[in-house]
Amino acid sequence: MASLAGHLKLSNLCWIYDSNHISIEGGTDLAFDEDVGLRFQAYGWNVIHVDDANDCDALSEAIEAFRTTDDKPTLIVVHSVIGWGSPRAGTAKAHGEALGEDNVRTTKEAYGWDPDKHFYVPDGVSDAFNKAIADRGRPLREEWEALFARYRDAYPDLAAQIEHMLAGTLPDGWDADIPSFEADAKGIASRDAGGKVLNAIQPKVPWLIGGSADLAPSTKTDIKGAPSFEADNYGGVNFHFGVREHAMGAVVNGMTLAHLRGYGSTFLVFLDYMRPPVRLSAIMEIGSTWVYTHDSIGVGEDGPTHQPIEQLAMLRATPGLDTIRPGDANETAEAWRAIVKDGHHPSALILSRQAIPTLDRSKYASAAGLARGAYILADSDDPELILIGTGSELPLVAEAHEKLKAEGIRSRVVSMPSWYRFELQPADYKESVFPPTISARLAVEMGGEIGWDRYVGREGRTITMSTFGASAPLAKLADKYGYTVENVVKVAKEMLG
Amino acid sequence: MASLAGHLKLSNLCWIYDSNHISIEGGTDLAFDEDVGLRFQAYGWNVIHVDDANDCDALSEAIEAFRTTDDKPTLIVVHSVIGWGSPRAGTAKAHGEALGEDNVRTTKEAYGWDPDKHFYVPDGVSDAFNKAIADRGRPLREEWEALFARYRDAYPDLAAQIEHMLAGTLPDGWDADIPSFEADAKGIASRDAGGKVLNAIQPKVPWLIGGSADLAPSTKTDIKGAPSFEADNYGGVNFHFGVREHAMGAVVNGMTLAHLRGYGSTFLVFLDYMRPPVRLSAIMEIGSTWVYTHDSIGVGEDGPTHQPIEQLAMLRATPGLDTIRPGDANETAEAWRAIVKDGHHPSALILSRQAIPTLDRSKYASAAGLARGAYILADSDDPELILIGTGSELPLVAEAHEKLKAEGIRSRVVSMPSWYRFELQPADYKESVFPPTISARLAVEMGGEIGWDRYVGREGRTITMSTFGASAPLAKLADKYGYTVENVVKVAKEMLG
Repeated sequence: MASLAGHLKLSNLCWIYDSNHISIEGGTDLAFDEDVGLRFQAYGWNVIHVDDANDCDALSEAIEAFRTTDDKPTLIVVHSVIGWGSPRAGTAKAHGEALGEDNVRTTKEAYGWDPDKHFYVPDGVSDAFNKAIADRGRPLREEWEALFARYRDAYPDLAAQIEHMLAGTLPDGWDADIPSFEADAKGIASRDAGGKVLNAIQPKVPWLIGGSADLAPSTKTDIKGAPSFEADNYGGVNFHFGVREHAMGAVVNGMTLAHLRGYGSTFLVFLDYMRPPVRLSAIMEIGSTWVYTHDSIGVGEDGPTHQPIEQLAMLRATPGLDTIRPGDANETAEAWRAIVKDGHHPSALILSRQAIPTLDRSKYASAAGLARGAYILADSDDPELILIGTGSELPLVAEAHEKLKAEGIRSRVVSMPSWYRFELQPADYKESVFPPTISARLAVEMGGEIGWDRYVGREGRTITMSTFGASAPLAKLADKYGYTVENVVKVAKEMLG
Repeated sequence: MASLAGHLKLSNLCWIYDSNHISIEGGTDLAFDEDVGLRFQAYGWNVIHVDDANDCDALSEAIEAFRTTDDKPTLIVVHSVIGWGSPRAGTAKAHGEALGEDNVRTTKEAYGWDPDKHFYVPDGVSDAFNKAIADRGRPLREEWEALFARYRDAYPDLAAQIEHMLAGTLPDGWDADIPSFEADAKGIASRDAGGKVLNAIQPKVPWLIGGSADLAPSTKTDIKGAPSFEADNYGGVNFHFGVREHAMGAVVNGMTLAHLRGYGSTFLVFLDYMRPPVRLSAIMEIGSTWVYTHDSIGVGEDGPTHQPIEQLAMLRATPGLDTIRPGDANETAEAWRAIVKDGHHPSALILSRQAIPTLDRSKYASAAGLARGAYILADSDDPELILIGTGSELPLVAEAHEKLKAEGIRSRVVSMPSWYRFELQPADYKESVFPPTISARLAVEMGGEIGWDRYVGREGRTITMSTFGASAPLAKLADKYGYTVENVVKVAKEMLG
């Protein structure tokens, strides 16, 4: 993060580093003696040291130096004593434990305060504080409002964009250019379809911006022909986060909190490097969008280190995070539509590296069913078996359904791109998709099996990954792990006895 | 990691930084222009620059400088051209794509090699290489073997320890001092019990070493009275990893690969910062031990950011990782016993912050059942209901069982500390614990619900977390989220109609 801020010369950024030399286990010298100032200089920051946290003049000077620095971020290293004024000053206990009543009294006395007063703000302090803020803030706000009124007159379209941003709304026709994809047996990778859809939406919603952690040529999230966000062009829309997944997540959350619609992309397995900001987006209930491509053993030759297995479960287990794994190009279009439309919850869009056949929607149900999380893609009269597919395994399951039909076996195909959305549906819809009377259920997904029991039940089965993957071309892996039409048909027949 | 290595003055460590100025999206200047050498100087490293990767003399000099540096690690920054000699030299394509047949030919020609030869090592190279290694290695090995023979004569006990380490075996009586805990209604936090057990094992298995990411006073993993591993004492056993969870994971894996039995501890929610090394321990199938305390909303006032919810699912979804959440002090003892005994798979030991009553094992089944993953703790004749508990919720479930019994309701209590171990049991054992005829099943766990469907079935229920937690004392949270005996009894009765 600091490295990226230095690269981007974010001179509005100031971090104050409280250097109190104390950690939970004891003095920081137990584990840490790097020269933090020098490290930030290496990142291209302006580094200022304040030798004493109680030296208000030195602090003011440091902040003034930050304000006048216009070509780099500023780090102010403030040397301080933790728990200053208390009997535990300068000790690890001041970090890890409450002071306790007696020590709080002693500390107040050391400050010259009345030890009997609680939650006490000395006379005049809050008045002075409020006045200072009001006196400074009122003209600034009036100035901004006048400026925005002039701006709206001069640039009504751009002003309308800002108003949409602030209100969290979308302009009319924002989704008018979302493409529809023709049926195609060869198909298209959902990462490629995702790139096309994003490029169809973004010009209508120009505050939908983001980028990749050095994988844009692979995740396909670049806005074509648009400029990069760089130190010499803060108007750019394509962000180059570098190989910094965690920082990307934090930056995207910051953008989203600032009324932009931020997105960040990388390979699904690299979710492991950015779990904390993904979790925070869910805790904060903000509409950050995480685009994860190369979503399975479909990664192929790069092998187990790069093949996600447990990552889908990690996302699905995160409360309030909508994880969507679309099953073909048209579901990918519907996924982006659903994500942009929602805007108030984080979403993880899970896309394939490899081509996925585009299903014939004149024969199968509309991909618009994606908005409900799961829907009946294909059916039989009085089905005896439910086949469930997500992502790249959906067309595989549809093909197995056709084979079974030819043999007189009556299956239903459920496309289930989002457990999260499905769980929000009313009980009667859920039962219409998964009638309790049909206990022969088979879920097919190139990921771990945890969680599928809910949908397949005790008599159901899954074709999922119970181990890490292997390094080989996908066709070989598909064969090895059972992701073939023949195997889906075979397991389905076993279930029906 | 680099910061820790600098702190510990690991002068045997040399990293060679291939500075080719290329990333996948293009030149590194798209996103990165920090001064890497200066950054490592800030970490306390010896930094050497080699201007040209093809300058063998400069490389030899740099490596010689590393060899003679005895007070800090060394970074050699080597400026290079990616894809050197190929038509794609110095471009991002040389990183992200295969060269292709024609470019490979051209590259071989540039090297003066025969373009028709494949997997070709020029004459003499492998002979010279093998000879150099053999000539250098044979006397070194003979010297070491002679040294070890003398060492074994002088210090037979210590030599036996090394032999156990290398063979992956344990000395007789290694578990003789593992304590047994008396029944106690007030009980003890499983982190405290864990600390006592670890301290009872470690003196018998002195190569069982590790530490904490600046949380040892809380995770209780310090070996009492033992020295710290520090730059001036590489014989220390307590590691201070600092606030560096990812580095801790990588170091512990390195220790384990070097025949030590490494462990690392932090709070369960901070698993998010160290997913990659945990995953690698599972891919490599090595016996690293991850100790995660503060395992639930039991964290209390620190609130949702510090209360793990989805982390148990993240661990359980990881193939080959044994996640054990013991239900009282005696199960904690059995958990450490099982972990040290196994040694060939990674384990995550999940421990509570808060006190857990110690169950009366004269009344209930032995905690040794933990080794099978799940076992019947308490039963009724012809049970009509199964209550499942893990960790701090096990005594809660046991108490609910007693209440139900007093009302004439026949329940069975299953303690289920490890799904991983249970899944490895034979089918008849699994059915004996969870007979298919008993469909009223209630699992109680202070974590997310994903995955529990497998054990409770479609007619079962769970008392689990479907949202993030909240900031309050645990008693309030237990009430809010239903972790009370009254609620367990109520839900159980609802299930029985």
